[in-house]
Amino acid sequence: MILPALLTSAGFNIVICVGFFSLYSILRKQPVNIKVYFGQRLAQLKSRGQKNLFFFDRYVPSAGWLVKAWEASDDDLYACGGIDGLVFLKMIVFCIRIFSVAAVVCIFIVLPVNLFGQGIQQINAESQMDIFTIRNVQQGSRGLWAHFFALYVISICSYVLLYIEFKNVARMRLEQVIRFPTTPSHFTVLVRGIPWIPGLSYSEAVSKHFGSYYVSSYLAHQMVYRSGTIQRLMMDAEKMYKVLKETPINQYLAPTTVGCGQCAGHSNSFKMLTCESESDIKKPNQPNESDLKEQECAAAFVFFRTRYAAMVASRTIQVLDPMLWVIEFAPEPHDVYWENLCVPYRLLWIRKTLVFIGSIIFSLWFLLPTTLVQGLVNIAQLESTFPFLRGISQKSYANIVQGYLPSLVLTCFALIVPPVMLMFATLEGAISRSSRKKSACCKSIIFFFWNVFFYNLFTGTWWDRITRFTVTGLKDMATLLGNLIPGQAPFFMTYVMTTGWASLAWELMQPYVLIVNWIFQFILMRKEGFGDLYTFPYHTEIPRALLFALLGFTFSILAPLILPFLLVYYFFAYFVYRNQILNVYITRYNTNGLYWPVAHNAMIFSLIFMQGVAAIIFGMKECGTASTFTCVLIIFTSLFNLFCRHKFLPLFKNNAAQDLIEMDRHDEHSGKIEEILPRLLASYYQFGPYSGNHPTDLLSADYKKCGEDPVVVPKPKEHETSRDPATTTSGSKL
Amino acid sequence: MILPALLTSAGFNIVICVGFFSLYSILRKQPVNIKVYFGQRLAQLKSRGQKNLFFFDRYVPSAGWLVKAWEASDDDLYACGGIDGLVFLKMIVFCIRIFSVAAVVCIFIVLPVNLFGQGIQQINAESQMDIFTIRNVQQGSRGLWAHFFALYVISICSYVLLYIEFKNVARMRLEQVIRFPTTPSHFTVLVRGIPWIPGLSYSEAVSKHFGSYYVSSYLAHQMVYRSGTIQRLMMDAEKMYKVLKETPINQYLAPTTVGCGQCAGHSNSFKMLTCESESDIKKPNQPNESDLKEQECAAAFVFFRTRYAAMVASRTIQVLDPMLWVIEFAPEPHDVYWENLCVPYRLLWIRKTLVFIGSIIFSLWFLLPTTLVQGLVNIAQLESTFPFLRGISQKSYANIVQGYLPSLVLTCFALIVPPVMLMFATLEGAISRSSRKKSACCKSIIFFFWNVFFYNLFTGTWWDRITRFTVTGLKDMATLLGNLIPGQAPFFMTYVMTTGWASLAWELMQPYVLIVNWIFQFILMRKEGFGDLYTFPYHTEIPRALLFALLGFTFSILAPLILPFLLVYYFFAYFVYRNQILNVYITRYNTNGLYWPVAHNAMIFSLIFMQGVAAIIFGMKECGTASTFTCVLIIFTSLFNLFCRHKFLPLFKNNAAQDLIEMDRHDEHSGKIEEILPRLLASYYQFGPYSGNHPTDLLSADYKKCGEDPVVVPKPKEHETSRDPATTTSGSKL
Repeated sequence: MILPALLTSAGFNIVICVGFFSLYSILRKQPVNIKVYFGQRLAQLKSRGQKNLFFFDRYVPSAGWLVKAWEASDDDLYACGGIDGLVFLKMIVFCIRIFSVAAVVCIFIVLPVNLFGQGIQQINAESQMDIFTIRNVQQGSRGLWAHFFALYVISICSYVLLYIEFKNVARMRLEQVIRFPTTPSHFTVLVRGIPWIPGLSYSEAVSKHFGSYYVSSYLAHQMVYRSGTIQRLMMDAEKMYKVLKETPINQYLAPTTVGCGQCAGHSNSFKMLTCESESDIKKPNQPNESDLKEQECAAAFVFFRTRYAAMVASRTIQVLDPMLWVIEFAPEPHDVYWENLCVPYRLLWIRKTLVFIGSIIFSLWFLLPTTLVQGLVNIAQLESTFPFLRGISQKSYANIVQGYLPSLVLTCFALIVPPVMLMFATLEGAISRSSRKKSACCKSIIFFFWNVFFYNLFTGTWWDRITRFTVTGLKDMATLLGNLIPGQAPFFMTYVMTTGWASLAWELMQPYVLIVNWIFQFILMRKEGFGDLYTFPYHTEIPRALLFALLGFTFSILAPLILPFLLVYYFFAYFVYRNQILNVYITRYNTNGLYWPVAHNAMIFSLIFMQGVAAIIFGMKECGTASTFTCVLIIFTSLFNLFCRHKFLPLFKNNAAQDLIEMDRHDEHSGKIEEILPRLLASYYQFGPYSGNHPTDLLSADYKKCGEDPVVVPKPKEHETSRDPATTTSGSKL
Repeated sequence: MILPALLTSAGFNIVICVGFFSLYSILRKQPVNIKVYFGQRLAQLKSRGQKNLFFFDRYVPSAGWLVKAWEASDDDLYACGGIDGLVFLKMIVFCIRIFSVAAVVCIFIVLPVNLFGQGIQQINAESQMDIFTIRNVQQGSRGLWAHFFALYVISICSYVLLYIEFKNVARMRLEQVIRFPTTPSHFTVLVRGIPWIPGLSYSEAVSKHFGSYYVSSYLAHQMVYRSGTIQRLMMDAEKMYKVLKETPINQYLAPTTVGCGQCAGHSNSFKMLTCESESDIKKPNQPNESDLKEQECAAAFVFFRTRYAAMVASRTIQVLDPMLWVIEFAPEPHDVYWENLCVPYRLLWIRKTLVFIGSIIFSLWFLLPTTLVQGLVNIAQLESTFPFLRGISQKSYANIVQGYLPSLVLTCFALIVPPVMLMFATLEGAISRSSRKKSACCKSIIFFFWNVFFYNLFTGTWWDRITRFTVTGLKDMATLLGNLIPGQAPFFMTYVMTTGWASLAWELMQPYVLIVNWIFQFILMRKEGFGDLYTFPYHTEIPRALLFALLGFTFSILAPLILPFLLVYYFFAYFVYRNQILNVYITRYNTNGLYWPVAHNAMIFSLIFMQGVAAIIFGMKECGTASTFTCVLIIFTSLFNLFCRHKFLPLFKNNAAQDLIEMDRHDEHSGKIEEILPRLLASYYQFGPYSGNHPTDLLSADYKKCGEDPVVVPKPKEHETSRDPATTTSGSKL
């Protein structure tokens, strides 16, 4: 990789990004694209009764979207994106902070040491970039202490920041419980693996079991029903017919199939956004009773009188066979992934294993494009391997190919990864949409870390060695690793520009939705257009942000030149994602901050990897003391991680008994429980037009109302706010 | 390793074992050794009032101990050794069964294939043994399908046996709960990390918290007190004085310091076996109240009215900081390791990490003797490395040295491992004696598997290669592994004989206790002697039995000649350990079968290792189809393990809510709860002569009474036996 190639790539990308950003600021002002760029705001407007149609002229100044994104408060973001949106932005902010520190330390201290190191004797085109890296530092040089110092500064800053953020997210998560005291999922557990008792239906078995052992707290239950796709479609059609007959059509939005690429997978049923027709819900059109009994699954939602009882039930083993009566907290009503609830619990581990094997095979298959890409980078070696390519490096377009094409190929191939992972997560048997997305996110992270980062790193280094075949032992391996990782820095700089910057432009432009929307409007001549119902693609964006963090940590002290590119990426990401959360994506479901532990683990992994590579390189450069102290740092990082897991992780798995008991007592005392319980029973409804979008969701989905006070329904009373300092203090702290 | 050396070793060991076994049958008949060989029976006799002093003449026929051990029923063993004793014997029986199958299959099918394989062209002294192994099978030979068949038979038998045993142990564990309905630990939780609230003592904080949130079920609590060693000794002395003043001395046994090698570590306090003085307990001599308040730790035992309430409390997070109010089920009163209860909960993870680092260092240090041992085995190579040793292999004693000494050295060094691991487990902060022993057991297993098995395997193979230095890649590594593992078979055969057989003789003879007892009786002229209070050393014996199982699995199809040696070991082990459990060791505490999951994991690991090595060797011998199908077997083993963990493991961590609720209801209904609760409050008592040996232990330790009906106190009433089929059926099933 030579300097001109890198510069070509940088130039290309800057032009592309500036072009796209300008295009965006024009496109977003066209009313025809409202559905594409203002899905979130549009949804809010609709629910407010379509009053201010000229809203957009005021809210869309010609170049001010950056300013708007900057000005939005945490409360606005929370109201639009929920905790998950805030957590994602916290990741971006964490990266900005830590890489700012790293950039200051590394560019002012480490980079000069590298530049004047004189470790590389002959500078040719190939090693042009290496004078900026640690390879240029001579063996045993005292300049290595600069790298050591930078390593310690970055590590300690990371500990502090990670600790503070983990604490904040944990607090946000707990406050969420107190903030929405009427969430139906607090009172509800999902029971799976209901045993088949001869002479009893599943429903009767549930009644008997809970009526017997939870007699004081058991309220009611609701079975989950098996349903084939055809049956579901027929039911939907029937419902639709009745609905159309009963109510004027324009009281609803047009029926919209939920977009398949981003959030709703294989759902074939019609889903509707309803906000007004409260009266319909009182008597939902129940399918025939006897039909349903035959269609019962061994799964049910069970409702309790108190939150504490629900938690206790979800935390205990019921009977001697732990694969029967498996109880866990129910997801929110609109978060339930009904299709997977009927999967027999005993089959789940088989599914999980098969998915595990499947993802390994998928990863292996994916090595093909990465090998191809790596081949393109080393064009000189390709020439020597395949003689018919000789002379190609003399051509004028060789620079472009070498600098730009490889990571573009990688990006295109990487685009199919998140949807595949989402499919894997579905097959695994996730019971909620949010857990499905989280699982896909974890899988994608592992995939990207392995396939994009490590494989590129190692094919790059092994490509050199494969002809000489002299890897003779572990020590040699370590040396190889330490020697050649810095050499991969230019490739990853290009990667940051192409994949990073370009992906932000792509994200902002939404070209796919834009084009489909145009086709709908101009070719199919439909009035409504397309594309207003996407949820935020965390499983695509979080792995990308974390992959760049891994790059940043790994190369920060080895090749500090990568840091400015990364900082540019994160700064733009900050604005773009804020804009997207505020304007584009709607929030249907939330993991309540479960993405943070995932990000924390990825950061810890990146830190340890950075320190391990540094230890190897210090050892190689005959700086034994520094190497030893770096190993101490690795141990300390592990300890820090253990500490955080001990201290915060349990809060992400359970609620505190104290809080729940106090909320229960408060509701009991104030009589509010009488309001909550009847609505509770109506909140989970499997069939019909309301499944997943039931109006009683509003009970729990108060935070959807963008820009309003988060505590809306029911309004906090005087004695309540005095009890929960969270509702008043959280706004300023979040 | 050559055949004469192996035969020398075998001869030596047979002579030694026969000698020891004969000596044992003489020694056990001497009344002077009663305390050494009949500690368990002696303890029972004492508790029955020392009626039949001539008991031993009847119970010790001259050569019939094997018969006695054979004849004992499972109920007797359960009564003497508890569930853990039975679980340990189940491991031995499992090994006998699986290796009997393996021996039949491998010796009649695999061994002839090996013998007539003609893979080795020149047979010299070094490769004399190799004609019995898979190395003698030619590449691509169809004889390899015999090995493949044997592998499948062994694997499938293992699955079936492991499944059955896991199920049985899980059932035993659950029946244990129902069998002893009055165990105080069911009603009690241990609270640690009590927060420091200004103005409140810890005790008051506990009252306030549980009185507020568990108002209907909270009964009482008891603080844990800090105590320096000196203070404890003084308190003990004071108690002792009072006790001596109040009661005639011969009503107690002599004060005995609990043996330090086996079970009680650093305990300096006097501990006493008391069985009669019920009256003393009613008013235990409480230390001064105000003194105690200052000595309070942030830990307490909290008693509940119902078992279910205790379980619920132990399964929930109390407050927002999960490191405060940490609740878990309390250990049995005599199982509590009081010294560790005062360790602040926040420090526990630091301790655990330090212990982890410590054990890694310990393992590395231990490589020294193993390297030494491996050097002795390859005496010819030693000669060529160190010229001054030249000619040593011509000497007549070289055979003995080569065959016998190496594993003896290893054995001696390995003797110190379990005590060190027990020390590590103590430092880790185990709160009960049983969990401490289990933790030491797990550590020892990992240590032995790594240091004895793998290191010997690899130094053996690497010793050959280290001069040539031609390990050029992973593929070569696999070839090396597959080629040289069978070559290590003779070394491990010797190891089975020396360590295995000899350790059984050692175990039976108890030479250390025997000699110390003699010194006490004949030199110090004490009447009481020494050595009647040992508990079973699971942390020494289980790792050994599992290590031999690993050897058996690994070598069964590679070098089937090892199987007869192993079977002899396991058959003798069966008799010896039954005898020891029945006669020698007392049972003070029990993990209630928690050793089985440990053994299960070790077996699964051994199976996968066996299959992995077989897959490599099949691949090497150009039998690709067999190799592929062996890989399928590995996946199947992993699936089987996952299934077992899903199905049975939760039962080892929790009790079923259904059982507990029904027991609670039954007690409530029958009024038995009024009996249980007052005794409950007196059962945990930290200071004084009764700590750990409190007479109310009898409440829970009914199974100590060897040979009696397990359900003793309180006697089962008519309606109870009809409720619990376990009490009547378990006897025949166990």
